[in-house]
Amino acid sequence: MTDTRRTIPSDQAVPPLFAGIDLGGTNIKIGLVDDRGALLGYQSVPTEIHEGPEAGARRMADVVRQIADGAGIGMANVARVGLATPGTMDIPAGRLIKPVNLPGWNDFPIRDRVSHHCGRPVTYANDADAAAYGEFWLGAGREMHSLVMLTLGTGVGGGIIIGDLSIAGEHSHGSELGHIIIDIGPNARMCGCGQTGHLEAYCSATAVVRRTEEALQAGRASSLSAAIAGGAELTALLIDQHAEREDPLAVEIVDETARLLGIGIVTLLHTVDPSGVLIGGAMTFGREGSPVGRKFIERIRQEVRRRALPVVAAAARINYAELGSDAGFFGAAGLARADFHRKPE
Amino acid sequence: MTDTRRTIPSDQAVPPLFAGIDLGGTNIKIGLVDDRGALLGYQSVPTEIHEGPEAGARRMADVVRQIADGAGIGMANVARVGLATPGTMDIPAGRLIKPVNLPGWNDFPIRDRVSHHCGRPVTYANDADAAAYGEFWLGAGREMHSLVMLTLGTGVGGGIIIGDLSIAGEHSHGSELGHIIIDIGPNARMCGCGQTGHLEAYCSATAVVRRTEEALQAGRASSLSAAIAGGAELTALLIDQHAEREDPLAVEIVDETARLLGIGIVTLLHTVDPSGVLIGGAMTFGREGSPVGRKFIERIRQEVRRRALPVVAAAARINYAELGSDAGFFGAAGLARADFHRKPE
Repeated sequence: MTDTRRTIPSDQAVPPLFAGIDLGGTNIKIGLVDDRGALLGYQSVPTEIHEGPEAGARRMADVVRQIADGAGIGMANVARVGLATPGTMDIPAGRLIKPVNLPGWNDFPIRDRVSHHCGRPVTYANDADAAAYGEFWLGAGREMHSLVMLTLGTGVGGGIIIGDLSIAGEHSHGSELGHIIIDIGPNARMCGCGQTGHLEAYCSATAVVRRTEEALQAGRASSLSAAIAGGAELTALLIDQHAEREDPLAVEIVDETARLLGIGIVTLLHTVDPSGVLIGGAMTFGREGSPVGRKFIERIRQEVRRRALPVVAAAARINYAELGSDAGFFGAAGLARADFHRKPE
Repeated sequence: MTDTRRTIPSDQAVPPLFAGIDLGGTNIKIGLVDDRGALLGYQSVPTEIHEGPEAGARRMADVVRQIADGAGIGMANVARVGLATPGTMDIPAGRLIKPVNLPGWNDFPIRDRVSHHCGRPVTYANDADAAAYGEFWLGAGREMHSLVMLTLGTGVGGGIIIGDLSIAGEHSHGSELGHIIIDIGPNARMCGCGQTGHLEAYCSATAVVRRTEEALQAGRASSLSAAIAGGAELTALLIDQHAEREDPLAVEIVDETARLLGIGIVTLLHTVDPSGVLIGGAMTFGREGSPVGRKFIERIRQEVRRRALPVVAAAARINYAELGSDAGFFGAAGLARADFHRKPE
């Protein structure tokens, strides 16, 4: 992962300047960038969900102001603020609806409250869409004209960027790529959303753990059994470690996850036909740094080559994302920048 | 279907004017429209594939000129020409690559040759994308900000329009919606493209006939058997007619086709989240006019309501297209118009 914390002095900044806020259930990450995406300042603060959304909006504005002041710039020189939050949300209305990861923050006009406390206009986006835009602007997609990004974590998130346009959808449900259907068979898996056969039901970290548990319960031999008996928790990280040591079950789980992800990607390639597909998120073996991760992405590419229409199979670029958990605030700032350059205020 | 052949006198036309050409394997449909999409003239001429693509390009230009002259306008007042063709194609290069429905027209620079013969700039598009744009501009999607269109015929074609942008893809393979994967099970059906589990392998007219044949061969009782024994050809139209007479197998085939189409549509809704989805094409029961067609679209809506995320399920509008086989030339003209207004020449 790039060291995105390295900031530039404010006298080297190319105006206009933009702040990006990535609001998560645990932390709020906030960065101030210039027009090229160079970082002028950064802070991560705890979300403090229990204090409620109004206090949260005020704290976000305070941190943006601190960063701007610390860089010797001042809030008045921040052209626009980008705010990314988890769903469910109403993007045109600027409201959190029922965000599962922010209990108690339901039905809150977060865009306008952050704008009020900042005194600056705010662009509002879904966090997975913002992460995709961050990679598009400054990360693994910076040479691409369009991209699809899949974020593998507890769930499977998605973002689609086409020529500077983030596909947020007409009802704030665009790019819900964890919920594309890959299996209509009688044994299709149950998704966290209550439906069956969704990509997320196969390829999230949660699903990977569940599939492994099922195999162990069915009596499959694996070095994981001894580890679990010894007190280890069965996680995607543990499966990654055992796959690295060539445990056959762990290797098979990783391989099958890549195969299923490749199938979902083929559907997305035949829908969007983007310059490339990026894999991001916290799931351990879905990462550049992991030795297993290299096999994982190669297996995805193999499945795509096998299943996509010939032109698409030959052209598709499938790579890991680069910005890690910084993609969200960079992307939020980038979406604010795109709005600004479209229609300056 | 709207009578789109009704033309307006040229002195009522609102400039600029655009020609739209829809090149098919049998006919070439060409219309001249004004800036609001009002039709000033129309002709359909045989494609005459055997004469080759250069003669075809010349004939297309001749017909555009005839229509423009007939309307008392002249070619010089046609601001731009839109040309829609089947794939495979290279849209940025303006070339037919290997169009299955135009044998012998491979590797031909059709955009530039039509432009040469017309003496006007040409916008080049995939025919299914153009049909979607036609519905977006003037048909069932005219109130929508974005739409996904599925065209049911020998195959399943698709088009995605988002806020005036047609998702043609980076490698001319955007919106290949017949080739999204809906089934990864061991019994997934073989698609015409050679892959398995694609939407087209279940929902094209060809697939509908094949599924019916299989059921008959497996001994299912149906009034279709007697019809076939009497010399009738098993087609989607015949299945429609028997479904209308409540033949249980025919009813079941129509119902199952709608269900499977609904599943594909859920994936597209979770990817694009458009204002609406339109069903078009020549497949008999996939049409407004057919009594079975009304049940068909209601069954699609039911499956979508059952399977989509709640907000999407509540918001999704799923309707039949309106322009029939005129959608292509209207859409080609509309895409030329969009290019013109983006960057007039």
